[in-house]
Amino acid sequence: MNAIDIIIKKRDGKSLSKEEIEFFIKNFYKREITDYQMSAWLMASFIRGLSKEETVNLISAILSTGKILDWEFPVIDKHSTGGVGDKLSLIVVPLLASLGYKVAKLSGRGLGHTGGTIDKLESIPNFRTSLTLDEFKSLVEKIGCSIISQTEELVPVEKEIYSLRDVTGTVESIPLITSSILSKKIAGGAKTIIFDVKVGSGAFMKDIKTAEELALWLKDIGETFGKSINVVISDMNQPLGNAVGNLLEVLEAIDTLKGNGPEDLTELAIETAGTIASKELLKNSLSNGMAFNKFLDMVRAQGGDISNLSPSAKRYDFIALDSGYIGRLDAYLIGEAVRTLGAGRYRKEDRIDPNVGIILKKKMGDYVEKGEVLLEIYYNSEEKLSSSLRLTERAISINKDAVERYPLVYSVYS
Amino acid sequence: MNAIDIIIKKRDGKSLSKEEIEFFIKNFYKREITDYQMSAWLMASFIRGLSKEETVNLISAILSTGKILDWEFPVIDKHSTGGVGDKLSLIVVPLLASLGYKVAKLSGRGLGHTGGTIDKLESIPNFRTSLTLDEFKSLVEKIGCSIISQTEELVPVEKEIYSLRDVTGTVESIPLITSSILSKKIAGGAKTIIFDVKVGSGAFMKDIKTAEELALWLKDIGETFGKSINVVISDMNQPLGNAVGNLLEVLEAIDTLKGNGPEDLTELAIETAGTIASKELLKNSLSNGMAFNKFLDMVRAQGGDISNLSPSAKRYDFIALDSGYIGRLDAYLIGEAVRTLGAGRYRKEDRIDPNVGIILKKKMGDYVEKGEVLLEIYYNSEEKLSSSLRLTERAISINKDAVERYPLVYSVYS
Repeated sequence: MNAIDIIIKKRDGKSLSKEEIEFFIKNFYKREITDYQMSAWLMASFIRGLSKEETVNLISAILSTGKILDWEFPVIDKHSTGGVGDKLSLIVVPLLASLGYKVAKLSGRGLGHTGGTIDKLESIPNFRTSLTLDEFKSLVEKIGCSIISQTEELVPVEKEIYSLRDVTGTVESIPLITSSILSKKIAGGAKTIIFDVKVGSGAFMKDIKTAEELALWLKDIGETFGKSINVVISDMNQPLGNAVGNLLEVLEAIDTLKGNGPEDLTELAIETAGTIASKELLKNSLSNGMAFNKFLDMVRAQGGDISNLSPSAKRYDFIALDSGYIGRLDAYLIGEAVRTLGAGRYRKEDRIDPNVGIILKKKMGDYVEKGEVLLEIYYNSEEKLSSSLRLTERAISINKDAVERYPLVYSVYS
Repeated sequence: MNAIDIIIKKRDGKSLSKEEIEFFIKNFYKREITDYQMSAWLMASFIRGLSKEETVNLISAILSTGKILDWEFPVIDKHSTGGVGDKLSLIVVPLLASLGYKVAKLSGRGLGHTGGTIDKLESIPNFRTSLTLDEFKSLVEKIGCSIISQTEELVPVEKEIYSLRDVTGTVESIPLITSSILSKKIAGGAKTIIFDVKVGSGAFMKDIKTAEELALWLKDIGETFGKSINVVISDMNQPLGNAVGNLLEVLEAIDTLKGNGPEDLTELAIETAGTIASKELLKNSLSNGMAFNKFLDMVRAQGGDISNLSPSAKRYDFIALDSGYIGRLDAYLIGEAVRTLGAGRYRKEDRIDPNVGIILKKKMGDYVEKGEVLLEIYYNSEEKLSSSLRLTERAISINKDAVERYPLVYSVYS
């Protein structure tokens, strides 16, 4: 067996055996197969495809390079494919824990429009996201939930493969996405995984068909590994909730955990957690303070302090120039506008400004009067504000006639 | 324009513009596009294909990274896609020069069964193959021919691309092969190029259809660059001539230049050179010593001395175990057997033993008596001889019935 023959086999559209995939991944991890050979293989796999069986074997091979977290009780994990204003994990994790479930989430930093869940949590003063796996486990046991940043100990090779995919045009492949997501989640040791697959302009998946396909791959292959998999496919044509930006999103998550969140965000939290728990109990937990208290427990246990949270930034009111119905509030462009303000990264080493962002005062389908505030922009640099305004302008359209709203949830698999 | 977008465009089967190809090659040469990005692009180009227009633009981009040799008179070059026992260049170059043509050949070292033309020439004591381009030009002007090794000054990026193709399973692509071969030949500045495309078990091209396709690509695209292109497609199911091994091949080339060469080798030399010159005159030149004298001039001018050439190796006589007709004399396996003896390289840094090799006493279709010598093996290590014998054994089959011979030449395009 050698690397070149395996590349050629996939190049020619043939199926790879379990042994061949294992050989390729293990030797890549040992640096005996080079980056450029992995890239050629990734491109061949992207174009020729990987079967579900090959994908299962790929995940097993990736898992074999690291350790798998071992829990003494059944644990839930939650993962989103990523969207603009997506602070759902901050809500769903403590919400489920408030009903007695054990929720353990390993999360990444964002390399997108806004930060990832970890960046959002780090906008809370002193919040520690780099716990050891032992600290993590004991928090989940004691409090019922914890969110920490992805550690190098689990699936180290996955990160290396992903970095290559990112720069070689081999990202948007269902089998490769499935293996990347599932290998990380399986290494986290959860028994049950809830996936929120986003679809729309601000999401990785632009159309329902591809999102449905990914959902089925995640479910099928996750179940092959003995996991219970729930998938919600939800809309990302406009931002989720009203807040976009790290600290602004934390504040909105807190409101939602207290039962005062925006409608769409609250509904999606119930829908997502509801694939596991009773929706009645979930609603109660939001209205009676239990969910918020669980969040507070988690924040305190991880060193954070939310007593004085407010964005240190100037505010610009973005006024409607016409009256009418909001026909477009493009999630992608709003995301880019917020990244431009400094809330997201262009390169891995970029530092995030947790204070900047956008608060939407109107959502798609809403009526707006000329002169009304459409959105508030929180900024710390006039220059960045200007660049951001041009993107915001292009993100929004106002129609004379009433506009049909997108559904919030397209499908639920549980 | 950026590298990832260009990779994705080709990945999705779209055509790349001249500017995109130029951007990609130039930035790869400047190391601003990485090896792994080039590998992903090569795999995408391999699977999706490159059009003739893209290939022309690829060659132009590769040429723009180095210099192009400039001659004051029309020059001929000759190139073979490589085969076992293929010492044709050693014959055709001085043969054409003996009729007054100017022949300038830049050649590579072999990374195959046996050495390349340069390795063969270096089995002549003191023969210098690393001349400067100025020395090369003045030799071609004075003597009429010279063969030197490929220099870094011409198409430096081609070598880097080829090294990547070699280890990423992206070699056997007609457009990529065409661009690799033609960019080197065009940089050499010849007006006329003769290609010998080999087909059969010991060749890169295994079937006639692919060989014909490559021939047409070389001709079409070479002519786009204003070159006069002649192509001969010849057989490589059995070795060419009788000698396989570096010094043994030089000795056979000398015999052929003196008019005493094996029939197939002599015929192919006439056929190949005959795409340019009169076959009558070529035959005369072989029989009246002119071709050999030209070879001698070239060898002397490059410092070589052929007065005492004979292989310093032991001889093993490989005996026929049955009587019958030679049905198979597999070029690939004979090539591997000779490489095992030490005549070829497994890795770039391997040193070649010029003395070892095989002399075929019978060719395909010939009748052999049980106990007759089928071939002579020249070896310098008992251990290597043993390994080599196993390959030789598998290379040969002896049939009861008469066997149809392969044609020597399949097509000629001129």
